[in-house]
Amino acid sequence: MLESCSAARYNKDMNITTIAFDADDTLWANEDLFVATQQQYMQLLAPYRHNWDAAELHAAERRNLNYFGYGIKGFTLSMIETAIEVSDGAIPGRDIAAIIDMAKAMVHAPLTLLPGVAELIPQFAQKYHLMLITKGDLFDQEAKIARSGLAEYFRHIDIVSEKTPHAYQRILQRSDINPQSFLMVGNSLRSDILPVIAIGAHAVHIPYHLTWAHEHVDIPPHERSWHECESVYALHDWLADR
Amino acid sequence: MLESCSAARYNKDMNITTIAFDADDTLWANEDLFVATQQQYMQLLAPYRHNWDAAELHAAERRNLNYFGYGIKGFTLSMIETAIEVSDGAIPGRDIAAIIDMAKAMVHAPLTLLPGVAELIPQFAQKYHLMLITKGDLFDQEAKIARSGLAEYFRHIDIVSEKTPHAYQRILQRSDINPQSFLMVGNSLRSDILPVIAIGAHAVHIPYHLTWAHEHVDIPPHERSWHECESVYALHDWLADR
Repeated sequence: MLESCSAARYNKDMNITTIAFDADDTLWANEDLFVATQQQYMQLLAPYRHNWDAAELHAAERRNLNYFGYGIKGFTLSMIETAIEVSDGAIPGRDIAAIIDMAKAMVHAPLTLLPGVAELIPQFAQKYHLMLITKGDLFDQEAKIARSGLAEYFRHIDIVSEKTPHAYQRILQRSDINPQSFLMVGNSLRSDILPVIAIGAHAVHIPYHLTWAHEHVDIPPHERSWHECESVYALHDWLADR
Repeated sequence: MLESCSAARYNKDMNITTIAFDADDTLWANEDLFVATQQQYMQLLAPYRHNWDAAELHAAERRNLNYFGYGIKGFTLSMIETAIEVSDGAIPGRDIAAIIDMAKAMVHAPLTLLPGVAELIPQFAQKYHLMLITKGDLFDQEAKIARSGLAEYFRHIDIVSEKTPHAYQRILQRSDINPQSFLMVGNSLRSDILPVIAIGAHAVHIPYHLTWAHEHVDIPPHERSWHECESVYALHDWLADR
């Protein structure tokens, strides 16, 4: 289905030899787990403050990025901090313990691969050097990669704390990869697409139905210089047509 | 001072071209910060239980490695969990908030390079390819590397979740390094020395005055097949003599 990929102002000859995939919400569902945990958390706190939204939690998360980075443990410390704030310190120990239990459940939650991933990643691996480039907590990400059953298909796995142009440049230099032959595939414009375009490499955006507020960017269609595919299936067809 | 390095059953011809350093308690002090924070924490909890030692906290840390891995955030969640346990849930929100503040102070604590490091790492970098191979939380480690001012001297920086023989093998293969030409330098027998010896590479142990209980191993001197140096200065002299 070639119609499920689109591109604007994108006309380069491509000779892609390496494809790097983002992991969370590109290969497997992730944001859903944070959203579900947040709902549980809001219920737990309902007795202490009625009719509050998650804005205070999101503010704590943003404020604490500088201390704790991304991932389940930082999210959990922000949940605990916010629980103490919104309850004016009244939240009892057993409810804090329940929040820590939510974190443990998240760490060991079953992993759901997105449609096409289990079938097509092994196929891509026959034709391209595959890399996995993911952002976040090392421990969380390694646990998910192990559970995904996909590790063997990736020549290199890089877990970085921020996906900046510099971070991509370092990864490519380290493996001696020419940006012109490198394609990054991911769901986040901010982390997977814009920094990759910035270093002269190629990028395919596969949007996910949920986007973490922190990752959101607004760019009008006519300014986009990357491809957009509906799914990994569409990516496969688009690559096959090149 | 050649006498400050010693070796048993170690007689190989060495042609070292790459030296990899561990970071925490090899290049800079780290365990001290955990020990100091733990003392603060014990004082905070003193009103809830008199005369307790840290055994319960250490048990929580070990139990939670499987959920949270190494690093400040996992340590903090274990401190909070233990505080709820030892106080029978009586610990108030403001004291939990104080524990989270301890974590934030740890993240941004000043970094103290160990003796000789600031002077000798740039010298080593002129003669060898230097790598940094460290275990733990990605966010914590990157913050410390940035603050150390040493990042520019290391060709490769690898942050891994566990230092197993397999992890070292992967790093060496990735950079096309022959184990015979590779020397690892670190303070932990369990993480920096034994797995490196196991893959046929070289190792120099520089003991630190504090060892985290989790890293402790007992090996009689006559079974040791690595060098032991008192400091980075001694390592420098030992290398100069080869």
